[in-house]
Amino acid sequence: MRYQLYYWGEIQGRGEFIRLALEDAGADYKDVVRSAGSDVMDAYFKKRNGPFACPFLKAGRLLIGQTANILHYLGPRLGLAPKDEARRLWLHQLQLTIADWLVEVHDTHHPIGSGFYYEQQKKEARRRSKDFLKNRLPMYLDYFERVDLGKFSYVNLSLFQMIEGLEYAFPRAMKRHRRRKLLENRYRVRIRLEKYLTSERRIAFNQLGIFRRYPELDA
Amino acid sequence: MRYQLYYWGEIQGRGEFIRLALEDAGADYKDVVRSAGSDVMDAYFKKRNGPFACPFLKAGRLLIGQTANILHYLGPRLGLAPKDEARRLWLHQLQLTIADWLVEVHDTHHPIGSGFYYEQQKKEARRRSKDFLKNRLPMYLDYFERVDLGKFSYVNLSLFQMIEGLEYAFPRAMKRHRRRKLLENRYRVRIRLEKYLTSERRIAFNQLGIFRRYPELDA
Repeated sequence: MRYQLYYWGEIQGRGEFIRLALEDAGADYKDVVRSAGSDVMDAYFKKRNGPFACPFLKAGRLLIGQTANILHYLGPRLGLAPKDEARRLWLHQLQLTIADWLVEVHDTHHPIGSGFYYEQQKKEARRRSKDFLKNRLPMYLDYFERVDLGKFSYVNLSLFQMIEGLEYAFPRAMKRHRRRKLLENRYRVRIRLEKYLTSERRIAFNQLGIFRRYPELDA
Repeated sequence: MRYQLYYWGEIQGRGEFIRLALEDAGADYKDVVRSAGSDVMDAYFKKRNGPFACPFLKAGRLLIGQTANILHYLGPRLGLAPKDEARRLWLHQLQLTIADWLVEVHDTHHPIGSGFYYEQQKKEARRRSKDFLKNRLPMYLDYFERVDLGKFSYVNLSLFQMIEGLEYAFPRAMKRHRRRKLLENRYRVRIRLEKYLTSERRIAFNQLGIFRRYPELDA
């Protein structure tokens, strides 16, 4: 199967969680927007039964939206999730918890709304970040340090991405929150994906993405 | 199968999306916290492979967390989703979009963080609500007015809940945003669920829930 991924071409963002799974599996896929431009997504957004937002994936006749839903579909097909229902539900539950965590990371720099620039909500971003780093971040880290991830799956890849992103955005805060298993997972994935991570296909973290480095928001 | 639902007993919140599905199907379930108190959830939160947050559902030996994941599991079992994968993925995609929408509704009154009282973020809540009502709400309403929901499913129940909640929280704004199909769906579900909705099992909307009526945040 040849997959077609649709997501913004300038950022890692939510699309990166899909890219990591496709790359790790050595899947045959096209990152459509990166070669054709983001306008190609418009036709899908206008479709009656199109997705509400990107990323979305074309897989044969299927058009699948929502990051966690795409990974739920791809998991067993890419050898990145077992096939039995109970394990799939568990991995999906973890992935949806990662999705909640990611929204909270985004909202550290955009607490008032995506329609405003960071500069228009800087004061609010400071308050939200402080609360996030103090109260929410340790809860998520402790949770994912504790749970049993089972056999290597797309959840390992997504947790790698969360830790990479958080280290980029909040290097000082993350120094205070080292979690052994999460760091081990990070290095394990770095080795598995070295070829991809050092290629041009891996977009660098930047100030347009979900993980942004604003030193004034860090601990 | 006897299901056991775990969710806060004083609010509709995320648990209500599950309750509506169980009630509509006439399923055999226990809303555990409402009779036993919220402390019964603690043991599950402490479990190594417990859920990160509620709601969660016990179904035989399965323990399932994340609202959309629970509905994905329950759907075909309750006759509220077809069994074929493509349709299930589509419904789940819609449900995850509803979940995103719900977070945005919550954040209208808590843009800085759940750890602060509303009164501590009232000014920020005003800004965020204004942006939500102007830019985000119409996008979501238009999207769900347009898409094909197919045969009656748990998504119809969740959309009913969104419209009920939004009418409670933002009565003035919602007058400007009437969507025919969404209103038809609302009345259709009201009739189906009349017995539940007029029972004591349906908790009333209140100022502890996700949908809150703060007139100063309305249009």
